[in-house]
Amino acid sequence: MRKKASVIAIGNEILMGEITDTNSTFISRKLFEKGILTVVRLQIPDKREDIEQALRFCMEKSNIIITTGGLGPTNDDITKKTIANFLGRDLVLVDDLKNWVEGFFQRRGIPMSDVNLSQAEIIEGSRYIMNPIGTAPAIIINVGKKKIAMFPGVPSELYVMFDKFLEGIEGSIPVTTLLRTTGIAESDIYNEVKKDAPQKIQKIIYYYPTWRGVDLRIVSYDIDLQKDAVNFLKHKFGNYIYSLEEKEIEEIVGIMLRNKGISISVAESCTGGLVADYITDVPGSSDYFIGGVVAYSNKSKINILGVRQNDIDRFGAVSEIVAREMAEGVKSLFNADIGVSTTGIAGPTGERPGKPLGLVYMAVSYKNETIVKKQIFLSPRKRVKVAAATFLLNMVREVIKG
Amino acid sequence: MRKKASVIAIGNEILMGEITDTNSTFISRKLFEKGILTVVRLQIPDKREDIEQALRFCMEKSNIIITTGGLGPTNDDITKKTIANFLGRDLVLVDDLKNWVEGFFQRRGIPMSDVNLSQAEIIEGSRYIMNPIGTAPAIIINVGKKKIAMFPGVPSELYVMFDKFLEGIEGSIPVTTLLRTTGIAESDIYNEVKKDAPQKIQKIIYYYPTWRGVDLRIVSYDIDLQKDAVNFLKHKFGNYIYSLEEKEIEEIVGIMLRNKGISISVAESCTGGLVADYITDVPGSSDYFIGGVVAYSNKSKINILGVRQNDIDRFGAVSEIVAREMAEGVKSLFNADIGVSTTGIAGPTGERPGKPLGLVYMAVSYKNETIVKKQIFLSPRKRVKVAAATFLLNMVREVIKG
Repeated sequence: MRKKASVIAIGNEILMGEITDTNSTFISRKLFEKGILTVVRLQIPDKREDIEQALRFCMEKSNIIITTGGLGPTNDDITKKTIANFLGRDLVLVDDLKNWVEGFFQRRGIPMSDVNLSQAEIIEGSRYIMNPIGTAPAIIINVGKKKIAMFPGVPSELYVMFDKFLEGIEGSIPVTTLLRTTGIAESDIYNEVKKDAPQKIQKIIYYYPTWRGVDLRIVSYDIDLQKDAVNFLKHKFGNYIYSLEEKEIEEIVGIMLRNKGISISVAESCTGGLVADYITDVPGSSDYFIGGVVAYSNKSKINILGVRQNDIDRFGAVSEIVAREMAEGVKSLFNADIGVSTTGIAGPTGERPGKPLGLVYMAVSYKNETIVKKQIFLSPRKRVKVAAATFLLNMVREVIKG
Repeated sequence: MRKKASVIAIGNEILMGEITDTNSTFISRKLFEKGILTVVRLQIPDKREDIEQALRFCMEKSNIIITTGGLGPTNDDITKKTIANFLGRDLVLVDDLKNWVEGFFQRRGIPMSDVNLSQAEIIEGSRYIMNPIGTAPAIIINVGKKKIAMFPGVPSELYVMFDKFLEGIEGSIPVTTLLRTTGIAESDIYNEVKKDAPQKIQKIIYYYPTWRGVDLRIVSYDIDLQKDAVNFLKHKFGNYIYSLEEKEIEEIVGIMLRNKGISISVAESCTGGLVADYITDVPGSSDYFIGGVVAYSNKSKINILGVRQNDIDRFGAVSEIVAREMAEGVKSLFNADIGVSTTGIAGPTGERPGKPLGLVYMAVSYKNETIVKKQIFLSPRKRVKVAAATFLLNMVREVIKG
């Protein structure tokens, strides 16, 4: 029989609408990829009766109950003790966890208040997953044939421990393949699929658009059909597919740069530092990333990057030639193998005749060649920045993959 | 008596983790601003039994039950007929709605299939709100003293009709104040509050930590008590509070820079472009942001920013003196009024004796003075970047607020 899961997000801030509960989305998707369906999700306040009621509700409907939130050290964090109480069990201190929590503060040279020691307690008879970036471990407890798993509400902590948790769970056969794309609109993919793919392939393709691109997930228990779908998509959208794993484009490009011993530098106008930010999000990026310039003013484009005043006057700062000069300029400034650049109109103002909002020129200069591409990205401002930065990184991938 | 609400989001795609349920966040926040607390939220599949069970669950806990999703014209949209059935009522066709739906297709020159006529049906005894941008109206029905309100799942359609719905709802007085802080840990605020604030003030302070800082929300129907809490927090944590509105620190600093006619430039090592990215997220930032340098290598710190080789050799690139020279160097490079800088160890590697992971020096150079501060931020890498960039922007605020 197929396993069923339910998710309970605990926290007043969620019910006050302060934060969006992306954790539950993450959990549902991860479970779904493993063939486990989420049958219900609840968001409830940090209140004993509500937690107990939600547990009863979910235990009836599912075999796996996941909770997030309420595992911090303060008074309003009551998930752990409420669930212990609900199951009629005690909390017990775990020495390894105590050492971890103490070390966590020591390593950072921060004095630890005693309240944090509660983080080292788990429920009697449960097992835990160490939290590599925080103090609250995940706690998993079997109740008859069912499983309750508690995770902290901090997304990054949840993400890293949830993957560990899933390794220990037998799913139904995980029969999904991920294809990550960037630089093509969801509707363009959808229309092509609708036009050319057989009906049964259409039905197993799921679309997850973000500002950075569109993830495609193929979900089917029929392995051959799945392969057919992957081949269809690869054939149609090959240039836009940058990964078949969870990795971001900057990780993919980072690995390629490292392996090939190629260094990179960045000149940014409309992306305003975001390209450099993405690149330096990758641990160890200092091995291939030398530096960048955010040249927001024309003067800085001219003085620091060597863009020609004359070209700005003739073609404007948002133009193919300026993108080209920026990429070549930053490459020589940092003495890097690759120079890349962006110049565009992020909005909401700055539109001019022939230069619509969202227009961005992006250049990659490598060896003796500089490639410039032009795109019009959708508003708002941040979306233009994100889409352009991602598009540019995919251009780098294309250029060096050779 | 205080009104209580619950929210039921209906749709298989939500439970597969395909989309994040931002509708429920929107609804909770709108209700909360009107003094109505959401006591529970559920996400359930498009299934009759699940909808009925969720309704029973929510009718017990709240006076206002909001549903989203399942109001489309196709077979899997079953919300309306399921709720009608649950209440033992019929669906009735409304002429005005029929005209609207037909006109909707006519105006777009699209032939209408008959299935769309179901969009003109409402539940017997209910009232509706016309959907100005789609075909599914919101439907509101009183059940005894309780109210069930159904909205479509398309966010833009929900938003516009929900505001209309709220106009017809009497709320309680909305009584919350927001204080946004950065540069101080949640546990430090918590401990100080616990130590020095009267019990009744402690009870109305809610903590929302993110990597950028800790938001504090004071929630009370007692206006005087609320003021006391705000004053207490301002007195204790004044330097860390950068806003009493939803605004981000870069918006606050941006407004100050613009009003004072001060320009800024940025030199980044460990934050890798994120400070510039934050600053340029603000529309119109080109008025005061001139540019930035991401100096990841020592060579670029020396060649472009004028940091002294000798100081790097003696004190290391992560040091007070290098932070100072970077800020002063970038200020003069861009000829800006302010130069700021970051240099630190974002991790996960790079730790050295006396230089722990997360150590960051940040400098602000303005007029004839350069201020340098040192902090140790928590892992992971991205968190160090985010916390340092935010801390630095708050330093700018402190320096120019004068």
